[in-house]
Amino acid sequence: MYNLLKGKKGIIFGALDSNSIAWKVAERAHEEGAEFVLTNAPIAMRMGTINELAEKTGSQIIPADATSMEDIENLVEKSTEILGGKIDFVLHSIGMSVNVRKGKHYTDPKYDFTTKGWDVSAVSFHKVMNVLYNKNAMNEWGSIVALTYMAAQRVFPDYNDMADNKAYLESIARSFGYFFGRDHKVRVNTISQSPTATTAGQGVKGFDGFIKYAEEMSPLGNATALECADYTISLFSDLTKKVTLQNLFHDGGFSNMGVSTKIMDHFTE
Amino acid sequence: MYNLLKGKKGIIFGALDSNSIAWKVAERAHEEGAEFVLTNAPIAMRMGTINELAEKTGSQIIPADATSMEDIENLVEKSTEILGGKIDFVLHSIGMSVNVRKGKHYTDPKYDFTTKGWDVSAVSFHKVMNVLYNKNAMNEWGSIVALTYMAAQRVFPDYNDMADNKAYLESIARSFGYFFGRDHKVRVNTISQSPTATTAGQGVKGFDGFIKYAEEMSPLGNATALECADYTISLFSDLTKKVTLQNLFHDGGFSNMGVSTKIMDHFTE
Amino acid sequence: MYNLLKGKKGIIFGALDSNSIAWKVAERAHEEGAEFVLTNAPIAMRMGTINELAEKTGSQIIPADATSMEDIENLVEKSTEILGGKIDFVLHSIGMSVNVRKGKHYTDPKYDFTTKGWDVSAVSFHKVMNVLYNKNAMNEWGSIVALTYMAAQRVFPDYNDMADNKAYLESIARSFGYFFGRDHKVRVNTISQSPTATTAGQGVKGFDGFIKYAEEMSPLGNATALECADYTISLFSDLTKKVTLQNLFHDGGFSNMGVSTKIMDHFTE
Amino acid sequence: MYNLLKGKKGIIFGALDSNSIAWKVAERAHEEGAEFVLTNAPIAMRMGTINELAEKTGSQIIPADATSMEDIENLVEKSTEILGGKIDFVLHSIGMSVNVRKGKHYTDPKYDFTTKGWDVSAVSFHKVMNVLYNKNAMNEWGSIVALTYMAAQRVFPDYNDMADNKAYLESIARSFGYFFGRDHKVRVNTISQSPTATTAGQGVKGFDGFIKYAEEMSPLGNATALECADYTISLFSDLTKKVTLQNLFHDGGFSNMGVSTKIMDHFTE
Repeated sequence: MYNLLKGKKGIIFGALDSNSIAWKVAERAHEEGAEFVLTNAPIAMRMGTINELAEKTGSQIIPADATSMEDIENLVEKSTEILGGKIDFVLHSIGMSVNVRKGKHYTDPKYDFTTKGWDVSAVSFHKVMNVLYNKNAMNEWGSIVALTYMAAQRVFPDYNDMADNKAYLESIARSFGYFFGRDHKVRVNTISQSPTATTAGQGVKGFDGFIKYAEEMSPLGNATALECADYTISLFSDLTKKVTLQNLFHDGGFSNMGVSTKIMDHFTE
Repeated sequence: MYNLLKGKKGIIFGALDSNSIAWKVAERAHEEGAEFVLTNAPIAMRMGTINELAEKTGSQIIPADATSMEDIENLVEKSTEILGGKIDFVLHSIGMSVNVRKGKHYTDPKYDFTTKGWDVSAVSFHKVMNVLYNKNAMNEWGSIVALTYMAAQRVFPDYNDMADNKAYLESIARSFGYFFGRDHKVRVNTISQSPTATTAGQGVKGFDGFIKYAEEMSPLGNATALECADYTISLFSDLTKKVTLQNLFHDGGFSNMGVSTKIMDHFTE
Repeated sequence: MYNLLKGKKGIIFGALDSNSIAWKVAERAHEEGAEFVLTNAPIAMRMGTINELAEKTGSQIIPADATSMEDIENLVEKSTEILGGKIDFVLHSIGMSVNVRKGKHYTDPKYDFTTKGWDVSAVSFHKVMNVLYNKNAMNEWGSIVALTYMAAQRVFPDYNDMADNKAYLESIARSFGYFFGRDHKVRVNTISQSPTATTAGQGVKGFDGFIKYAEEMSPLGNATALECADYTISLFSDLTKKVTLQNLFHDGGFSNMGVSTKIMDHFTE
Repeated sequence: MYNLLKGKKGIIFGALDSNSIAWKVAERAHEEGAEFVLTNAPIAMRMGTINELAEKTGSQIIPADATSMEDIENLVEKSTEILGGKIDFVLHSIGMSVNVRKGKHYTDPKYDFTTKGWDVSAVSFHKVMNVLYNKNAMNEWGSIVALTYMAAQRVFPDYNDMADNKAYLESIARSFGYFFGRDHKVRVNTISQSPTATTAGQGVKGFDGFIKYAEEMSPLGNATALECADYTISLFSDLTKKVTLQNLFHDGGFSNMGVSTKIMDHFTE
């Protein structure tokens, strides 16, 4: 639409199906003139329809387990080959709690599950940046974005250990973002998105009620996956070169609400 | 460059001379296809060179004292006439401490000066939104941005009562932003910018040393006025429709630094 | 009970009647062995029952309009005379919005009312510290506390311009707290208290529903006025000498909640 | 000194030697009338002098590896036996980065070390609360405190992966604190302490220069281990019953400083 990413090359993690935020980011990045590689875990790829997205956006797919340094190294090497140069933008949209999937309550998890979820959801972001940084695979003024959720700051009881994983993820963004900025002029930020009815989000208990609550709390209503993609594009573009180490709320205003008049209506009738 | 603001109409407060952030925003908004009205206080206009900017961007100038409801009402009415419709974006870039100008220390101000500075720097933002809201002068999904500084959150001793004014300003952004979002689908945010060598910024004591400190602290260095304009454009564009009530740091990462290696060098030799 | 304030001398602003937090602080400070002066605005004193409190705690009352430097100077001078030495602790519990009282909506205030409310609720705190600092009237390791509310950070639509006043107040705590700490080893903090059914709090529209909402959100329930007094005592005591420039939430956990299971029950039946 | 903890029973993790904050907490808790059990990892106990502390405070020592559910279960069972009832307060003062110890840079860690450090420094806090919560071993209005550091919010380059561990730890405090508050009326908070010259802290590179930097930045100077112990006592006492889910800065004001006059002196000569 605007050619905001014309000539830019990227890697997009986490597009599963057309509900995924990463899917929308890929579509919008394509519209804005970017070329990119799509990647997801081999197991996720079998469940989803990523081939359709690859075709639509003229992209290649490189499967990678984001917990494996070997896979990420292969991904980054192949990507720079395919795209013909260094990387300008990266989207990390990966998250999964085994405790949630297995129905374990936050107060009584299986710690092996906790470790696995942390590794997939948070440490993977460190590993991706580790490879990009040490291979010097990013162009100057490149942009790295990870998706997160406000449970990192405040309690959402059903979000389980994903809250802690997101807190760790956001800390990685700051910690690694410092070195990436100082040494390679690359910015690193997280987008803290409204609850979104993606295939992943729908696994959370009581999700519909929660979507309604967030909708009523937010002065502009919940942000959609497509709107999140638009926002992500702005962070990949050259308009935001000096924004780094930030956790950016994209949530219709939810994060700074104490209570809304609509929510209060439930307590005053 | 991208046609991001094609067809959009705006009001830009606070362009004094070519060092002003508001000046850069006007230039960039013009490049992005926007039409807008320029405004500043009558006294500021005499000191600056705003006519040059008006000519360059094909804009009209409407003088307005931003502490006067009458002037703002006149401004908004004339602007919608001139631009031929409702407003899509507004930049508030107004700030002035009489205590700073008169050399009064924070611990011993003249309270008339305190009130005047608060009225000009902070309440003016309320008055502008009051008129826009009550006249229903903004288009849906419009965007209002005010410039602020991190002294609203943390102590910068020489920033004097501007710290408190900026805290009040940021609170107005949230308080009014809620009603503006709920009732008119308009977003309201503040950009918390690096120290910038504008004509206004240069009045602060020890400013050069402070610029250096901030530069050494920030992994990407200080953000320039032009970069701030780019970021502002992204917030006026349709890419950020669901970002509201936020205070957004545009500072090369300064705001999330505890200490940098460069700063530590001063303490370890 | 613990002799935590034995030998300490203080000034307590804002005790109106036995519902006031300041009243509870006075009672608790007395129990902990402190001596202090009570003060309130002449007009508030006529409405309340502060004489009863003075008698109960063996305190003298010095009326003072906290917007008047002359009154505050008189108060501080008399207090040090009466108490026989410098001051160890000060409680600022003053807040009033004329716009709220007169039923003016946030989006359409009378700006004279805005200025008056700001002066009473926020600038008064600066004036009190101005006099204490410049008269060198505080002992080293003294403690100054002001009461505030979370509307300074997040939107509570009915809180009106008190939100902005509290943001300004909290900024004063940081700005003046820096100089008071650096120069006189005095700490300055604000306590951000649960909504409390004081005589002042009860003026806010829909207050009962709001109390219920906050109660259901907070894992420990709302904090009472007496509990707030206990917490204030801890901040006046020698146990917290290095806590300064902080805004401390005393709210049963409300401030870090995104949603509670009890609140979710309203959205899932 | 004040009998603030008279009749209260506790468990204190992490006293290594007389430089430890946990050591000072134990001494102060003893002075305030508490009874408690001391615990540390078997390996840490061999290095330290914890027996001396046990003798001085009339406490028993129960070794426990805080990453082992079995050890923690044994600890809690034995503690309630020894102390003759449920627990009123717990201090978690445990942290260790294998990457730091082995000299691995943040951008190039060994991920096994990362996992080990995370398990010891952060997950251990979850495990401790898991056992206390599920065994219903805490008294109502009990208090759990973990020590943390501001690297969880802002970048301190040499703090390495402890920054991310502390972010995870603080998230656990909120996440588990919600359930502990809701179900057992127990509060959970973290204290974010000044850099402290403990035996553990001294392992960090360039620590002396950093202590100096923090000292010059903080209006009240750095907080000592003893002052931290005093503050911890206030959080264990009945004066702070409604404070929960908070991260409380105990740092002489550092956390809310942008820059101090002393720091600026390095940039203006």
